[in-house]
Amino acid sequence: MVQSLNSGSNKIASERMRRKSEARRLDILRAAARVFRRSGVAAAGMREIAEEADLSPGNLYYYFAGKDELLFFCQDRTVDRMLEAAEAARASTMPVADQLRAVIRAHLHYTLEELEGATAHLEIDMLADDLRRTIIEKRDKYEHAVRALIAKGVKRGEFAPCDAALVARAMLGALNWTSRWYRPEGAQSVAAIAEGLADYLVRGVAAAAPAKTAPVRAVSGGRK
Amino acid sequence: MVQSLNSGSNKIASERMRRKSEARRLDILRAAARVFRRSGVAAAGMREIAEEADLSPGNLYYYFAGKDELLFFCQDRTVDRMLEAAEAARASTMPVADQLRAVIRAHLHYTLEELEGATAHLEIDMLADDLRRTIIEKRDKYEHAVRALIAKGVKRGEFAPCDAALVARAMLGALNWTSRWYRPEGAQSVAAIAEGLADYLVRGVAAAAPAKTAPVRAVSGGRK
Repeated sequence: MVQSLNSGSNKIASERMRRKSEARRLDILRAAARVFRRSGVAAAGMREIAEEADLSPGNLYYYFAGKDELLFFCQDRTVDRMLEAAEAARASTMPVADQLRAVIRAHLHYTLEELEGATAHLEIDMLADDLRRTIIEKRDKYEHAVRALIAKGVKRGEFAPCDAALVARAMLGALNWTSRWYRPEGAQSVAAIAEGLADYLVRGVAAAAPAKTAPVRAVSGGRK
Repeated sequence: MVQSLNSGSNKIASERMRRKSEARRLDILRAAARVFRRSGVAAAGMREIAEEADLSPGNLYYYFAGKDELLFFCQDRTVDRMLEAAEAARASTMPVADQLRAVIRAHLHYTLEELEGATAHLEIDMLADDLRRTIIEKRDKYEHAVRALIAKGVKRGEFAPCDAALVARAMLGALNWTSRWYRPEGAQSVAAIAEGLADYLVRGVAAAAPAKTAPVRAVSGGRK
């Protein structure tokens, strides 16, 4: 009985430690992402990242074996969140256009804000082969999820017929490219950029083709 | 008289040599661009580029001082061609949607085919400061030209009101991103990709906003 009580409080304590360590790891990833953006992934050093995270280099190495691992976890976390957002959108009952808007919003939030992933998010060439493969597989899965949303919109008549694979790549390109020009100190917030891009990128599929669809149908076609 | 005849034929000969050297330089740039794509800019070596161009390394150095210079000329040539295309489109009497389509077509041709610029086109971080500044200035000029085309379309009523700066960046992002996924051995030609992307990217601006514009006006609104 004492044994089992102890084991119970041990479980709670170890769960608390796990969460604390997880939170600390996320803090470190955020610091690393800031350094990656500021100095570039190639030039960023573990010492600079430790300083940014308010840790001694030794302490940093306790959490992450090296820059490679930090970069991997930045990217892995980002793509996991984007996959979750795509799955949540897919499972919702919103019009497909709104599902797509939700994905666009989440994409920009996670790549520009949450981890300030920016460039780091895209620089997978620096990863070791097995880590890179993991990221590429998840990204492919994400790209397929976006493509499936577009295809669903077409099937439901919400979107005009299009090459869903090509359009998905165009959307992701436009979204990923923001990390090349977005500056936190700039005039537009990430939320404002997300709305502007969602307007443009969704209109490109949602708009009825001028010649192919009669105007009356275009308006009664359930577009929101 | 003899003097001046000689000077005339010298001029022709030197003009011929200049052109020959120019053609040789372009051949080398093409070879370099292939190597940059195959091996990545960081890993590409002058020896590999020389082999690809069927030159001895010494001969390659006669034309280009180093990888940095090769990368610069690849990018410089590409952005010059894109600027020319944007200027030609702007000066034409076509509907603005077609001007934009022409720019999209040229962008993909010059970045994916002409110099197979692909990744190389985008990796400006590797350039020395002054070379990088030159490329960035020209790119900014190009981005402004695309933005101006969009703004012109809005002003003429061909396009729906939009944030021209943001839309221009979205378009360029979608176009530049092709270099991340395009494979010459893939199923779609560059021309087919260009048409598909032009359809999608232009429709996003050309489409009348569903709620804001009456259907009859949308159809008679001069869209081509």
